[in-house]
Amino acid sequence: MSNEADEVERRRKLEEALEVKALRRIINAYLNYPEASEEDVKRNERSFKKLPQTHKAILSHLPSKFQKLRWCIAQNSYFIFEMLKAFEPPIDLSLNTDICEDQHHQDNSSTSGDILDSQESLETIPREHGNDNFGAFYKISSSSSEWLNPSSQSHVPLVDVDKVRCIIRNIVRDWAAEGQKERDQCYKPILEELERLFPNRRKESPPTCLVPGAGLGRLALEISCLGFSSQGNEFSYYMMICSSFILNITQAAGEWTIYPWIHSNCNSLADNDQLRPISIPDVHPASAGITEGFSMCGGDFVEVYGDPSQEGSWDAVVTCFFLDTAHNIVEYIDVISKILKDNGVWINLGPLLYHFADMYSLEDEMSIELSLEDVKKVAFHYGFELEKESTIETTYTTNPRAMMQHYHLNANCVEVDGMKFSLS
Amino acid sequence: MSNEADEVERRRKLEEALEVKALRRIINAYLNYPEASEEDVKRNERSFKKLPQTHKAILSHLPSKFQKLRWCIAQNSYFIFEMLKAFEPPIDLSLNTDICEDQHHQDNSSTSGDILDSQESLETIPREHGNDNFGAFYKISSSSSEWLNPSSQSHVPLVDVDKVRCIIRNIVRDWAAEGQKERDQCYKPILEELERLFPNRRKESPPTCLVPGAGLGRLALEISCLGFSSQGNEFSYYMMICSSFILNITQAAGEWTIYPWIHSNCNSLADNDQLRPISIPDVHPASAGITEGFSMCGGDFVEVYGDPSQEGSWDAVVTCFFLDTAHNIVEYIDVISKILKDNGVWINLGPLLYHFADMYSLEDEMSIELSLEDVKKVAFHYGFELEKESTIETTYTTNPRAMMQHYHLNANCVEVDGMKFSLS
Repeated sequence: MSNEADEVERRRKLEEALEVKALRRIINAYLNYPEASEEDVKRNERSFKKLPQTHKAILSHLPSKFQKLRWCIAQNSYFIFEMLKAFEPPIDLSLNTDICEDQHHQDNSSTSGDILDSQESLETIPREHGNDNFGAFYKISSSSSEWLNPSSQSHVPLVDVDKVRCIIRNIVRDWAAEGQKERDQCYKPILEELERLFPNRRKESPPTCLVPGAGLGRLALEISCLGFSSQGNEFSYYMMICSSFILNITQAAGEWTIYPWIHSNCNSLADNDQLRPISIPDVHPASAGITEGFSMCGGDFVEVYGDPSQEGSWDAVVTCFFLDTAHNIVEYIDVISKILKDNGVWINLGPLLYHFADMYSLEDEMSIELSLEDVKKVAFHYGFELEKESTIETTYTTNPRAMMQHYHLNANCVEVDGMKFSLS
Repeated sequence: MSNEADEVERRRKLEEALEVKALRRIINAYLNYPEASEEDVKRNERSFKKLPQTHKAILSHLPSKFQKLRWCIAQNSYFIFEMLKAFEPPIDLSLNTDICEDQHHQDNSSTSGDILDSQESLETIPREHGNDNFGAFYKISSSSSEWLNPSSQSHVPLVDVDKVRCIIRNIVRDWAAEGQKERDQCYKPILEELERLFPNRRKESPPTCLVPGAGLGRLALEISCLGFSSQGNEFSYYMMICSSFILNITQAAGEWTIYPWIHSNCNSLADNDQLRPISIPDVHPASAGITEGFSMCGGDFVEVYGDPSQEGSWDAVVTCFFLDTAHNIVEYIDVISKILKDNGVWINLGPLLYHFADMYSLEDEMSIELSLEDVKKVAFHYGFELEKESTIETTYTTNPRAMMQHYHLNANCVEVDGMKFSLS
C-alpha cells in the first residue's frame, strides 16, 4: 500500500516537472526570438557577400534592407518581451526538474533519444489551468521572474523558432485589421449561424458556447460579444501566453506595432510589403462588449472536457481549424457529443490536415486520419444530425500581399454558412 | 607540373565518383518505394490497433482500405520498376566510389557529418549528359543491370522518399488527363504567347526554344509540337529517369495505370477519391507531332548554358516554375540574357518560393531571395524590356479532389498571357 502511494506521488511529481520543463522550453523559444531572427539576417548577408562584384552592384540596396530587417526584429522583440513580462506562470518555474531526467533514463534505457524531442507533448498544458473568468487567467504565480533571464536560455530547436513566428502570424489573423478578410471567411459564417440558432439570447442566462482550439481567442471573444457565455480552450502555451497578454493587458486598440512578414523573403512583391508594420489589436478586447462568463481555459481538450462533470454542459460547441489536431478524431467527436446538452449544436469549420500525419520521427504517435465522408459517419454514430453543409474558400495566416496563398477549399465539413450538426 | 596534373586527375575522378554516388542514391530511393509505402500502411494499422474497441467498430471498414492501399502500392511499384529497367545510366554505376569517402575525410576532418546529407548537390547532374535528339537520351550505357538489384539498397532518407512521391504527382501534372487543368493554367498562356510572337514558323528552320527546369518534359514537348526546335533542360535525375521513360519508351496513350494520391490521408473527401486510378500518358509522345530537334538535356542550367558556345543560340527561353530554384537568381537571369539571340524572348511564369530559403542545415548554401520588384530590376539591368505582365491563379501538383489547394497568385512575374520580356 505504501509502495503504491509512493508511486502515485512519484508520478504526480514527474507530471509537474514535465510541465515545468515544457513551459520553460516555450519561454526559452520566445526569449530566443531576437537571436534566431538575427541569425536569418546574417544568412542573408553571407549569401550577399558571396555574390560576384557585378551582381552586388545591381543589388546595392540589399544591405540597407538587412538593416531595416534588424530594426523590425527589435520592434517585434520589444513586443514579445513586454508580453513575457506580463505573463504570470501558472506553475512554479523554479522547480527542480531532475526527476524528468531520472524518468527518462528509466523509460528509455534502450534508446539514446532525448525526451525533449517529443515536442508535441511538451507544447501542451497537461492539466487544466485558469478555468477562470476573463481578466484573471492564471492563479498560481511564480514568486520571482528569474525565468525571464535570457542568460538561462538553452539551445532552441528550429521547430520552436517556427512556433514563435507562427504565433506572430496568428496575431494578424486574430487581432489586426489585415486579418479581417480571413476572419470574415472563417468566423463570420459561424457567428451568423449561432445568431440564427439562438435568437433569444438573454443577459441573465446566456446560452453557453465552448470553442476548443481557441488559438489567440478572437472567435471566442466575438461569440461572447454576441451574447453567449463563451469559453475558449487552448492546449498550447505559446498561444495562451499571447492571448492572455492581448485579452488582459492591452489598454487600447492599436497599442502595439509589429512586423509579422519579415521572416520570409519568398513570394514577396516588393521589399516594402515585407517590411510593412501592423497595428494590434484592432479592437480593445476589454471594451469590446463581452458577455458575463467569458473565459479561456488552458489544457488538452480530451483531458479537460472528457471529465464527467462536463457532460451536458454546453448549448453549442464551435470547432474552427481544430478537428485535425487530434491523435484520435473519433475521441474528439465522442467528447463533443457528451458535453453538449440535448439538442445542442456543433458547428465545425476547417481542413483535415491531420497534425500527426507526418510525424515520422515519433513512432508511437497515434494518428487516425479519416476522410470527410468518414468524419460524418462518426458524427452520425454519436447521434449527430447534419443540418447544413457548405464549401468555403479561406486562407490561414496568409500574408495578403504575397504571391502565394494556401486555400482550404471545402474547408468546412459539417458546418457553417449553415453547415452544422445538432444532437438528436 | 606533374603534381598539378595529378590534382586535376584526382578532381576529375572525384567528380565522377560523386556523380555515381548521387545517381545510385536516387535509384535506391526508387527501389525503396514499396518498402517506404508499406511502412506508411503499417503506421496506419498500428494507429488503428490502438483504438478502443468501440471506435474500431465504428471504423470497421478501415482494414479493407489498408489492403486496397497495398494493392495500389503494388501497381505503382510495377510502374516504377519497369521505368528503372528501361533506364540506361549515362555513367558506369559499377564504379568504385571510395574516393568520395577519402575526399570527405580530407574536407570534413573536423566534423562528423556525412557528405550524403547534402542532398541538393547529390540530386543534380553535375555535367551535361545526353544533349542529344529525342529518342536517344543517354549515350553511355552501363554494361550490367546490377544496380537494379534491390538487395544492394542502403538506408533511404525520408527526403528521398518524398522526392519519389513528388515525381508520381508530377506525372499527373504533365502526363494525365487530370493534369489538364493545371496545364491549361500554366502551359497554355505560354504556348499562346509563343504562337503570337513567332507567327511564321517554318519546318525547314524552326525557331529555337529552351525550357530550363523542364521537369517531366510536357511543356517542352508541347512547344516542339507547336513548331519550335525545343530543348528541355532538367537538373534532377529523379525527373530525367521518369521523363526518359515516358517520352521514349511508352507505346500508347493510357498504357499505364498509377495511383498517385494514396500517399496522403489528409484533406480527402472520401477514401475512393484517394484510391482512384490515373491513366498515363494522356497522349503518346512519339505520336504527338513533334518538330525536328526536340531533345532533353540533363545538367545544371548555369553549368551547361553558361558555356560560351551557347551565347546567342536561342530565339526563346521559357521558364515555368524554375527561377526560384536558383542559389543566385541573378546568375540565372544573366545566363538567360546571354544565350538569347538579339531580340530574343524570355517568358517566365512561377512563384518566388526560393528552394534554398529554409535550408538551415546547410550553412554554406547560398540563397539570394529577391522580391518580384527586384527580379524585374535585375532583368532590366541585363537589357530586358518588360512587354507584358499579368497575374494568374494556378496550383502545382495538387489533387483536384482534395479539400486543400495551394494557389500561386501572381505566379507569373514578367510573363505570359503575354507577360514576357524581350532583349532590346
